[in-house]
Amino acid sequence: MAYPKALERLIENLSKLPGIGKKTATRLALFLLEAKVGYVEELAESIREVKERIRLCSSCFNITEEDPCRVCTDEKRMKGVICVVESPSHVLAIESANPGTFKYHVLHGLINPLEGIGPENLKIGQLKERVEREAIEEVVLAMSFNVEGNATAAYVAEILRPLPVKVTRISSGIPYGGDLLYADPITLKHSIQNRRSI
Amino acid sequence: MAYPKALERLIENLSKLPGIGKKTATRLALFLLEAKVGYVEELAESIREVKERIRLCSSCFNITEEDPCRVCTDEKRMKGVICVVESPSHVLAIESANPGTFKYHVLHGLINPLEGIGPENLKIGQLKERVEREAIEEVVLAMSFNVEGNATAAYVAEILRPLPVKVTRISSGIPYGGDLLYADPITLKHSIQNRRSI
Repeated sequence: MAYPKALERLIENLSKLPGIGKKTATRLALFLLEAKVGYVEELAESIREVKERIRLCSSCFNITEEDPCRVCTDEKRMKGVICVVESPSHVLAIESANPGTFKYHVLHGLINPLEGIGPENLKIGQLKERVEREAIEEVVLAMSFNVEGNATAAYVAEILRPLPVKVTRISSGIPYGGDLLYADPITLKHSIQNRRSI
Repeated sequence: MAYPKALERLIENLSKLPGIGKKTATRLALFLLEAKVGYVEELAESIREVKERIRLCSSCFNITEEDPCRVCTDEKRMKGVICVVESPSHVLAIESANPGTFKYHVLHGLINPLEGIGPENLKIGQLKERVEREAIEEVVLAMSFNVEGNATAAYVAEILRPLPVKVTRISSGIPYGGDLLYADPITLKHSIQNRRSI
């Protein structure tokens, strides 16, 4: 014996979501079964809508409902500077720290040979074209400080070297307000290597 | 700055699900944005379908796509015996231990005065009618062994007392294969009180 077919189908579909196992999927499905029709319709519709309405900006490749996106057409942001990030959520992270400052370029991933992701799978060629076309003066690399982020930053810097553009990378070090005692040794080592005069 | 409207709407709707906070909802929404259209359509459709197709069996009140449900029309199950449980998932739990044995009656909750759930909110009246109508000989109470389960079992037993039906409750005690050392004192105390001759 099992749940009715329609419920089993929903459980199966929900358990394909990342981090949702069979038990959680069952709990969610039973919740939806008892939830108000209005909410359930709204949820189903918004799932559909996200696929229909959202596309990538043809200039910066961030997700958007309008092309070009509102960030690309925002005249108040720095001209001649592009901040390069790995995903749309990283754009939001930077915006929460530095609102309204940069225009962006979203790579949609990081170089990761183990998962078969090479430079050709990312928006790196488009970045180079854009830097040339828009006569960009500075490219700020804001990848994460892990193996893939470092490899991608190094590759992008190499690709841009022939062009008359300054390439910088955001700094790694002890988190602000952080005690040295709690920093991991690798962060601390990098932070010492990257010391600067004050 | 925020995500595009359609994405924000999806995040908001997903974060209304039980146990899903804003961060998880965002992760799920971004996953759906990148997922294959086929899967996303299938998920949205199955969410809708579960509301449209699934109803309660008019006899046992379990969830079903056909009324009466397949368990109620299954001639191989014990006649004259009804197992009373709190929810459809408890039916499944009992089926996994005792497949194809009982017919059921789903109360859809337990008495819980703190949450304003009284006997009138549960399918208890319908159980009494059914016991009379179908000339049931034994009602097996299979509520959980917590405060609400105990209260509900006592109430149902009281309601059925005037009728010529035997009311039993599944046993509480040391889990099978469990060591006495690891049983909590209350379970152990109950297990001693409920000792039986062998």
